[in-house]
Amino acid sequence: MPEPILFYDIPGNNARQKAWGPNTWKTRYCLNIKGLPYKTIWVEYPDIEAVCRKIGAAATEEKADGSPFYTLPVIHDPNTKQTISESTVIARYLDKTYPDTPRLIPEGTDALHVAFHHAFRPTVTPDLRKVVIPQVPKCLLPRSEAYFRATREALFGQKLEDIAPPGPKREEAWKGFLKGLHTLTQWLEADGTDKLFFLGDKIGYADITVAGALIWTRTILGADSKEWADVKALDGGRWARFMDAFGKFEAVDEGEDAVL
Amino acid sequence: MPEPILFYDIPGNNARQKAWGPNTWKTRYCLNIKGLPYKTIWVEYPDIEAVCRKIGAAATEEKADGSPFYTLPVIHDPNTKQTISESTVIARYLDKTYPDTPRLIPEGTDALHVAFHHAFRPTVTPDLRKVVIPQVPKCLLPRSEAYFRATREALFGQKLEDIAPPGPKREEAWKGFLKGLHTLTQWLEADGTDKLFFLGDKIGYADITVAGALIWTRTILGADSKEWADVKALDGGRWARFMDAFGKFEAVDEGEDAVL
Repeated sequence: MPEPILFYDIPGNNARQKAWGPNTWKTRYCLNIKGLPYKTIWVEYPDIEAVCRKIGAAATEEKADGSPFYTLPVIHDPNTKQTISESTVIARYLDKTYPDTPRLIPEGTDALHVAFHHAFRPTVTPDLRKVVIPQVPKCLLPRSEAYFRATREALFGQKLEDIAPPGPKREEAWKGFLKGLHTLTQWLEADGTDKLFFLGDKIGYADITVAGALIWTRTILGADSKEWADVKALDGGRWARFMDAFGKFEAVDEGEDAVL
Repeated sequence: MPEPILFYDIPGNNARQKAWGPNTWKTRYCLNIKGLPYKTIWVEYPDIEAVCRKIGAAATEEKADGSPFYTLPVIHDPNTKQTISESTVIARYLDKTYPDTPRLIPEGTDALHVAFHHAFRPTVTPDLRKVVIPQVPKCLLPRSEAYFRATREALFGQKLEDIAPPGPKREEAWKGFLKGLHTLTQWLEADGTDKLFFLGDKIGYADITVAGALIWTRTILGADSKEWADVKALDGGRWARFMDAFGKFEAVDEGEDAVL
């Protein structure tokens, strides 16, 4: 049995269920599906850069001024002494390093998975972000909340409350997201089957990308929200069945807070 | 050995090499890769609708007024008495009907191939079309030329000559296309390999989609054009090697003209 992998995630303010982020959820799903032992290290937003620099995690993007921008998820694997950033890179690393665990990106599908990512993003995320991002701050701890609000308001160029206030703007964005999700259904059914997953009968990394967006939606808007009821009812209940299949991979460990 | 499949394609005006269309080339590549016997039936643009109606081919799109719009490629398979429209649907049909031939869309990759198509199209085709489409008429026979010019000018809302006239507009579009092609290289190399094909070491339907666009470019702009030299030089010669690999699947039969 390998030593536990350290998995760096951002805590929400729900003590019972701290995990909430769409991208870190992708890595948690990967670890849970593979059944690898791991421990979550909770990092508040303003500490991400310092923690990443301390553990030698690569930056994943650039800020507007050209300086490195650090994001989570990151993992540190004590078994190989490697530190890996970015959810897709982590999925590839886990597939390669632990070949006896369920493969997330099967042989011969890596480039098609990359293309999937580029097709998925414009189809689903712009409208979903408008609806969910304004609700994220209320789910965060105070330091992260302030950081999230400041950075996202800079990104959108407006106050979070003005992006999609309750009413027509929000309705339109939500309808746009449901239409995008229906487009994914059309891709899945294009060959005349009603398969649940992109690879057919087993979960792969494309599905994990979709599930990351959906569990984010369910966590932030609430499992009892009107919006989540819409998702569950869409396309004959396909997405409810889809998320049911992910249910057994949603364990969240207690973990511990990062020490700077 | 099955009876020859009838393959409906649009003739160019080069008697030695009539095939030129990016979408019908996809089907020709499929047939050639599978080594299935077939005969080309050449259909001029203004006759496509009448021929499709005569052989019972489904329309693939709708016109602005809601009436059916017929496109090629279409195949009629005398072995199964089926008529199939649209290149991806044809690829699926050939994989299913002739399972002992090389598979184009391997088991478990259909939905990822659909996603590829939706990622490929905005990345590569808008700029490429601006450069190539204005040059298509000079490669067509007179009846097709007039039809092509009228329909494409209606689509673009301007004369073909004004879409990307030699000079900055055309340069910009061509650079945009090369950038899109380089983006495909990044998808192929994202896992740290320099594999030539999307499935790794064997040609699949995603590659055939790319090759359809590239052979169109080479045929219309010319294998000795500056533009084709750019394609061959890009990314360390990757796309020259890619098209070399397709070389043995580029046989064009003499065929016969459609009878209305």
